[in-house]
Amino acid sequence: MPNITIIGTGLIGRAWAITFARAGHSVVLWDTAAGAAAQAVDYITSVLPDLAANNLLNGSAPEELLARISVTDQIETALAGADHIQENTPERLEVKQAVFAELDRLAPKTAVVASSTSALLPSSFTESLPGRHRCLVVHPINPPYLIPAAEIVPSPWTDPEVVEQTRALLVSAGQAPIVMKRELDGFVMNRLQGALLEEAFRLVADGYASVEDVDIGIREGLALRWSFMGPFETIDLNAPGGVRDYVERYNGLYQNLFNQMQRRADWLGPVLDQIESERRQVLPSADLHERQVWRDRRLMALAAHKRKAATDIGT
Amino acid sequence: MPNITIIGTGLIGRAWAITFARAGHSVVLWDTAAGAAAQAVDYITSVLPDLAANNLLNGSAPEELLARISVTDQIETALAGADHIQENTPERLEVKQAVFAELDRLAPKTAVVASSTSALLPSSFTESLPGRHRCLVVHPINPPYLIPAAEIVPSPWTDPEVVEQTRALLVSAGQAPIVMKRELDGFVMNRLQGALLEEAFRLVADGYASVEDVDIGIREGLALRWSFMGPFETIDLNAPGGVRDYVERYNGLYQNLFNQMQRRADWLGPVLDQIESERRQVLPSADLHERQVWRDRRLMALAAHKRKAATDIGT
Repeated sequence: MPNITIIGTGLIGRAWAITFARAGHSVVLWDTAAGAAAQAVDYITSVLPDLAANNLLNGSAPEELLARISVTDQIETALAGADHIQENTPERLEVKQAVFAELDRLAPKTAVVASSTSALLPSSFTESLPGRHRCLVVHPINPPYLIPAAEIVPSPWTDPEVVEQTRALLVSAGQAPIVMKRELDGFVMNRLQGALLEEAFRLVADGYASVEDVDIGIREGLALRWSFMGPFETIDLNAPGGVRDYVERYNGLYQNLFNQMQRRADWLGPVLDQIESERRQVLPSADLHERQVWRDRRLMALAAHKRKAATDIGT
Repeated sequence: MPNITIIGTGLIGRAWAITFARAGHSVVLWDTAAGAAAQAVDYITSVLPDLAANNLLNGSAPEELLARISVTDQIETALAGADHIQENTPERLEVKQAVFAELDRLAPKTAVVASSTSALLPSSFTESLPGRHRCLVVHPINPPYLIPAAEIVPSPWTDPEVVEQTRALLVSAGQAPIVMKRELDGFVMNRLQGALLEEAFRLVADGYASVEDVDIGIREGLALRWSFMGPFETIDLNAPGGVRDYVERYNGLYQNLFNQMQRRADWLGPVLDQIESERRQVLPSADLHERQVWRDRRLMALAAHKRKAATDIGT
């Protein structure tokens, strides 16, 4: 079973550690800041009981999972036996370039080197590396141990075998990899999110709907089916003859809407004051952290529900 | 408690009947086709046991709920005691105009007349009516007894008191109304869906991702948080300082993506062949109906989960 090395143990790195250790991998944590990796283990220790209570540890006890995680302050030690390296350092190009140069220099030649970046294309920080063929992006939605989707994004020089090996690793760890055919700004998920947010901002900016109305339309409406089918399967089941029938019926309607969407609301303009005002009325700033804890508990319960529904009703 | 009259008892009308009867209302069904209303009651009878098994009947037994539903083939009888009339006839302008003229002529002057239309603006079929102030759109996602969101869309001449009365009726029936401030093509939900679908079609047409990859990105990714928070609350919790912090961090990223989205994939072109081909490989046409049954069972289980999570963890 491949050995995993986590480089950078902030929110994303520590979440990856849980994901891989849960799947049975040995995981080594390293961070440039002294003591950061040990703090990450403290955090992981604090999260595991809730995961166990929701039956989200693959049958492992928290202590078994923790026994698979080790820390080191020597990067050479961290990389020595690595098969897959997951990098989670700050989202600045010069940082990624320096870190990837070091990882490519020190890691075993057979190890895959993956970045969790959401904002940078893999070509932008791997082009000049001798081992650029084994570098790519694996972008999670945080935390990956509750949200299975992860984007695998190759650069033009990533070896297809490395892509396949990474895909298989993620699948065996219970993730749902999206394998992009080539790199693209925003990958898949942030592009889909961005497209939806543009319309959400326009609707509020133009005074047609409130922030809460938009959230209701998704959380009590569209996202219910999307949360177990996705948008293409949803429309495939929404016309008697499937997706072709749907598109033939509604293309004109959507064409008309698209024509109305060719201007961007200024996200930093008055609409932001309005959105912030509406949000702070229902959730004061002081309660943001507590609400993030609530979100993660709801995500855990949803993950447990989806697993049960998949067993009872099917996927 | 207001009396409900359902005009047109196809898929949407019969689903509204379940929704209102479950909330304790007396519901009268009428359809222009002989026997259609009785068929709707047969359908409702067949659905109730599954809803009861998922604890989705508000504690009523199926037979109690059925006792609140009656049928008539006389439209005058159907409308005689109505407080709220929900119209569900075919989506053609001339049909809606004729039906609304008749309903406005025959219904008690105090009754609200609501259309389930998804495609037509309320102004387009109510302008010339003497009672146009009491007409509006209440657009559900089907079936409303499993999907709470419903759009209330006033025309320019809809009485605000009628909007408020309709909102209160839906809330008391357990729905989550979106109250639009004024009418707009596509309302809120189809606009949000359309914006996301445009990018989904582009990603597939341009060869960056498969149909299944897009669906994974939503059903195993973005829609998990969206299914209990919506997109604005999601970004509000995704930066340490809330939504303003999020927008200030990522506006540039989304502006760049928006600039790349200013062209429409031809939905009826080669991309449709590809989407249909991918979908029919995982779901042959002959299995579409069975899959719709699966979808509704998953929706029921999700509704039951959300109710439990709201109680256990909070909303």
